[in-house]
Amino acid sequence: MATQEITIPSHLDIENAFNLIGKHINSTPVLTSRSVNSILGCNAYLKCENFQRVGAFKFRGATHAIMRLGIDEAQSGVITHSSGNHAAALALAARQKGIPAYIVMPENAPEIKKKAVAGYGGIITFCPPTQTDREQTMLRIKSQTGATFIHPYDNFNVVCGQGTAALELMQQQPDIDMVIAPVGGGGLLSGTAAFIKGRFPHVKVYGAEPKNADDAYRSLRDHTIYPSVKPQTIADGLLTSLSPLTYTILSQHCDGILTVSEQSIIEAMRMVWERMKIIIEPSSAVPVAAIMENAQLFRNKRVGVIISGGNVDLNHLPWQG
Amino acid sequence: MATQEITIPSHLDIENAFNLIGKHINSTPVLTSRSVNSILGCNAYLKCENFQRVGAFKFRGATHAIMRLGIDEAQSGVITHSSGNHAAALALAARQKGIPAYIVMPENAPEIKKKAVAGYGGIITFCPPTQTDREQTMLRIKSQTGATFIHPYDNFNVVCGQGTAALELMQQQPDIDMVIAPVGGGGLLSGTAAFIKGRFPHVKVYGAEPKNADDAYRSLRDHTIYPSVKPQTIADGLLTSLSPLTYTILSQHCDGILTVSEQSIIEAMRMVWERMKIIIEPSSAVPVAAIMENAQLFRNKRVGVIISGGNVDLNHLPWQG
Repeated sequence: MATQEITIPSHLDIENAFNLIGKHINSTPVLTSRSVNSILGCNAYLKCENFQRVGAFKFRGATHAIMRLGIDEAQSGVITHSSGNHAAALALAARQKGIPAYIVMPENAPEIKKKAVAGYGGIITFCPPTQTDREQTMLRIKSQTGATFIHPYDNFNVVCGQGTAALELMQQQPDIDMVIAPVGGGGLLSGTAAFIKGRFPHVKVYGAEPKNADDAYRSLRDHTIYPSVKPQTIADGLLTSLSPLTYTILSQHCDGILTVSEQSIIEAMRMVWERMKIIIEPSSAVPVAAIMENAQLFRNKRVGVIISGGNVDLNHLPWQG
Repeated sequence: MATQEITIPSHLDIENAFNLIGKHINSTPVLTSRSVNSILGCNAYLKCENFQRVGAFKFRGATHAIMRLGIDEAQSGVITHSSGNHAAALALAARQKGIPAYIVMPENAPEIKKKAVAGYGGIITFCPPTQTDREQTMLRIKSQTGATFIHPYDNFNVVCGQGTAALELMQQQPDIDMVIAPVGGGGLLSGTAAFIKGRFPHVKVYGAEPKNADDAYRSLRDHTIYPSVKPQTIADGLLTSLSPLTYTILSQHCDGILTVSEQSIIEAMRMVWERMKIIIEPSSAVPVAAIMENAQLFRNKRVGVIISGGNVDLNHLPWQG
């Protein structure tokens, strides 16, 4: 892999991103809780991107990528294939800009996700649920419309946008010792790491992922990008594998990846719901579970935890079997 | 009823309460949401007492009542009979002060409530689940210990403490046109109304209660305190009836009580969970439901909504039948 050809963001790129998108995103609160801190044995500061627009940090990167388009590019709109938060975020960010967003979704995507994307004005094309079909459908619509493909994380501007959550966190709670974020494709974690290590090199940055989807952990350990092969985890935002861009950033800036059991994820999710009265999705419980499983590492530290989102099907909660 | 003998709090009493308890309580955030506002047709500012200590506004009143005790009184501790948030709040506030809290609970109270009170250090005595048994048990322990009875809402200092939530709300969002709060025994609503009408007389103050437990509505309409007789409502924090103190305050300061259906309560609760990613209890959904059912009254106004708490059994959500 020619990693040396990849340009990775500096903290200045992320500061510039923040200056551009700041007025268009929610400045989300940082919450802390005595009882959670006493359970975790550290001072945890939760950066609540579950309160971000569309209910997830993805709105930062999507907004930034769209604002960086040239006038001609922008007019033809944007396109992505996704059934998750990125699709919803891209649809809403495009609507804010007044340009079309073409979303390719597998026909078996959950109704709730189809409705969310449609509700934000996304122009949906359904396709059979295979990777090949998704990519072919995307390429066909792209050639018909001239829309610009916005990858959910293998995209410089998307990663810079995601890094702005860490920037806000450090403004709100400047005495942080460590930051931990979930890692799926790595967009959030790499944006976080690029900002923190550039601006606050003494602050540690960890990723957290399910043991059942530990491709990022293995990729960084073995210095190669492993694909994520049909992982079985409740953390449905963390199913994807690293990309050349996110792999390169994390190789340079991440202090380690911690993996956690499914049981810990559910326990951490429920604990945050009960103690803090906020709704976090399973992927966001992964870094909390990592603190629980690695108490020694975090003991008495001030730990920033990036809560990635809060989109959960309230009819099916994980502790209800 | 000799209402003229009852001293009701002025806004100055509530400001004094705030000066006393401010450092001991959470300063809870005020949250707003574009999508909720678009559904409600107004700008709703949710004062999030679900983020208060013990998960409910009750900690304000309990803390204030305890801080107003004389040294000798305080040493003998406090006592109440309750199975709800007031018991947990009194137990924690007493522990903070280093004095005992005796809590009389019906033996059939939910395990989760028993654990909460015990977890905050409350000294629990169980009794048969009748009003007479509760009161007799309470009087027996009171005479044995010399503890001071702290009524959950028929208590001047408790009401002043509850009013501090509205005080904070007006500091955080000074351009509010109207405030709405749930009403059960009336401690929260009367503290809110006393503060708002004293300090911001142009701001309207409404109460909201379930149609199935509409004793406050009827009491104010007919100028008499009706008892609340075995009401069937999901809003389990609003089962009690007004007291002489809260009735007197509301008669003078409340602009009206709005009643809502059980279906609206569940719909409003789910809507807030889904759109705002915060956990609110059914009682807190009642004022949101009142805005939904009375859209005309609130149209385009800036409405402060006191979210009373977030203590919910996550194993039994109301939309799951």
